[in-house]
Amino acid sequence: MPPTTDTDRLHLARTLELAQRGRGRVSPNPLVGAVIARDGEVLAEGWHTAYGEPHAEVEAIRAAGDQDLADATIYVSLEPCCHTGKQPPCTDAILAAGIRRVVVASDDPTEKAAGRGLGILRDEGVEVVVADGELAARARLLNQSFRKRARTGRPWVLFKSAMTLDGKVATRAGDSKWISSTDSRELAHHWRAECDAVAVGIGTALADDPQLTARIPGVARQPRRVVFDSLARLPLDSQLVQAASEVPLTVIVSRAAPRTATDALETHGAEVFVATGANEPARVVSALDQLGAAGVGAILLEGGPRLAGAFLDAGEIDELRLFLAPLVLGGRTARDPLEGEGVETISEALRALTLDCDRVGEDLLVSARLKEW
Amino acid sequence: MPPTTDTDRLHLARTLELAQRGRGRVSPNPLVGAVIARDGEVLAEGWHTAYGEPHAEVEAIRAAGDQDLADATIYVSLEPCCHTGKQPPCTDAILAAGIRRVVVASDDPTEKAAGRGLGILRDEGVEVVVADGELAARARLLNQSFRKRARTGRPWVLFKSAMTLDGKVATRAGDSKWISSTDSRELAHHWRAECDAVAVGIGTALADDPQLTARIPGVARQPRRVVFDSLARLPLDSQLVQAASEVPLTVIVSRAAPRTATDALETHGAEVFVATGANEPARVVSALDQLGAAGVGAILLEGGPRLAGAFLDAGEIDELRLFLAPLVLGGRTARDPLEGEGVETISEALRALTLDCDRVGEDLLVSARLKEW
Repeated sequence: MPPTTDTDRLHLARTLELAQRGRGRVSPNPLVGAVIARDGEVLAEGWHTAYGEPHAEVEAIRAAGDQDLADATIYVSLEPCCHTGKQPPCTDAILAAGIRRVVVASDDPTEKAAGRGLGILRDEGVEVVVADGELAARARLLNQSFRKRARTGRPWVLFKSAMTLDGKVATRAGDSKWISSTDSRELAHHWRAECDAVAVGIGTALADDPQLTARIPGVARQPRRVVFDSLARLPLDSQLVQAASEVPLTVIVSRAAPRTATDALETHGAEVFVATGANEPARVVSALDQLGAAGVGAILLEGGPRLAGAFLDAGEIDELRLFLAPLVLGGRTARDPLEGEGVETISEALRALTLDCDRVGEDLLVSARLKEW
Repeated sequence: MPPTTDTDRLHLARTLELAQRGRGRVSPNPLVGAVIARDGEVLAEGWHTAYGEPHAEVEAIRAAGDQDLADATIYVSLEPCCHTGKQPPCTDAILAAGIRRVVVASDDPTEKAAGRGLGILRDEGVEVVVADGELAARARLLNQSFRKRARTGRPWVLFKSAMTLDGKVATRAGDSKWISSTDSRELAHHWRAECDAVAVGIGTALADDPQLTARIPGVARQPRRVVFDSLARLPLDSQLVQAASEVPLTVIVSRAAPRTATDALETHGAEVFVATGANEPARVVSALDQLGAAGVGAILLEGGPRLAGAFLDAGEIDELRLFLAPLVLGGRTARDPLEGEGVETISEALRALTLDCDRVGEDLLVSARLKEW
């Protein structure tokens, strides 16, 4: 396969920028950007703007108007699709536009894609170039949730917590309001807006009666609220249930949940999923399978330690973002961000692929990617 | 009092640089640097090189040789002493050298100093200037251990730990080797060399049989090893006791320790201090009082969680340095860096004065100053 040129990489980098514009709007579709160029000259740009709307390639071809694209190259951050979903295949659009060269930054791991679109284009005599190296890695990182769901059927999970310098998420008496600074909490509201769902355990739901909405201006859509609640104990007068008609609410119960309680939740507008499995981690996987099938691409997991521990034991935490607050609490019985079974030796520990630290208000934000899809 | 000029601040900044050269050698004395200058021209420099050796001012005056210092200013990072200890008073040396202007970066909070030296100089007609602002703050930070001991009689305590992203210092089975990277562990050996003592609890001593020495090249002196060991259970064949003739070992016991055990430790060369008090935090304070009286200026506290918790409850942790490793362990019963009683509400939490983050090998080093002396 021919390698990318410097000009190619310049245009590909631009497709990644364009792709970002769909953040918070396109999931569970991928973020995609496209550029049509003739050497250094950009003829048109496009990106996937919202779920259900035209794909980036089609937007770019449309933006090109009636320019002759025979000598042009189309750059796309993700392999073009070749199947009909909510939109017609992008391979058809590219061929119809007479474009003879396609450069893509990353593959699409979905079973019905996975290089198939590129094969169709090649069969039609189109020159196809796939980037590697840093640009390809950046393109994959852009769509971790899309890629995980494409490969496993389950949503990508971002675990967020706020802990003190001595590794605690609450005092010995359970007080946790507030460990993180107002700046950190506002940032977390942005993460809610960028994910398809926000998940908590019933412990957190009972203790805090949270809304779990993204309370910042200009939110394109509110995340689905998900409560892991084996016995369907979520009160009907809780804020979560009361708002179920405005913002979707999913309650994950086990087989042991009383039918009267699950019926009442459904009557009040909640969706109830029954997670099966012999233990908590197995039920987490079962719930994620169902959430993935329901179109949830990315989940912001907001705890508490028990639920997060079950996600960890299930191997289902993909990224971790911890606010480290300039506080020290002490206390033998104060809790950690992650419980569960855990590992026995350091050599069995889950090792982060990346580790970063930024300052947010008075806190440090420590980010770690645990999986790469 | 006249303010400092730009030239003054330039020379004072240099005294702080010079002072640093004594690190790891002068404690429990303060780090001090001195510059003799005439306007922009530096005539001589000096610093306190080692405990028992001449003070910085005397070194600088000596370095000036037979130059006429009548129009010169002496800059000192700390108020000059006016009492005879291991060395004669620096105020006498300054007057004898005919210096007529003294600029200092910070006060000496020791009871027998505390502005007394400056008063003596003023009485002799010397112009005295004391800096404020950022330079003064930097000068105070340079000597936190000296300042705490001068004010309280107790050593300054630096608590060091290594924790995972989920706030744990060991797995549920107690495995902690190694959470931090080799680079981090090497850096911690430098901290040992810069402190007068390294302290652990008997739990750590029994579990790890550590040496607690600074195993890096060019260590000026090894830190005293201190073991908090209420019942004098430290084995006579442990590495700590076996090396007691080469590197001082202090065992902190309670009144409940069996006399036969403490006698045996002493016979093997260990020093035994009896810490009094009704609870662990009180016994920590009692031990620190005795360590301070014995000339220990700075302690590196290396855990474990129970001992560190007692220090925290006693209000005796002055700075915290945490290696945050890119690992996730999970586990309900895995331990935190700090236990003790702790606080009940977030509003009672100890709030760090500063919070910093640096990369060390694969880890993040999070540093927080909890007290300022």
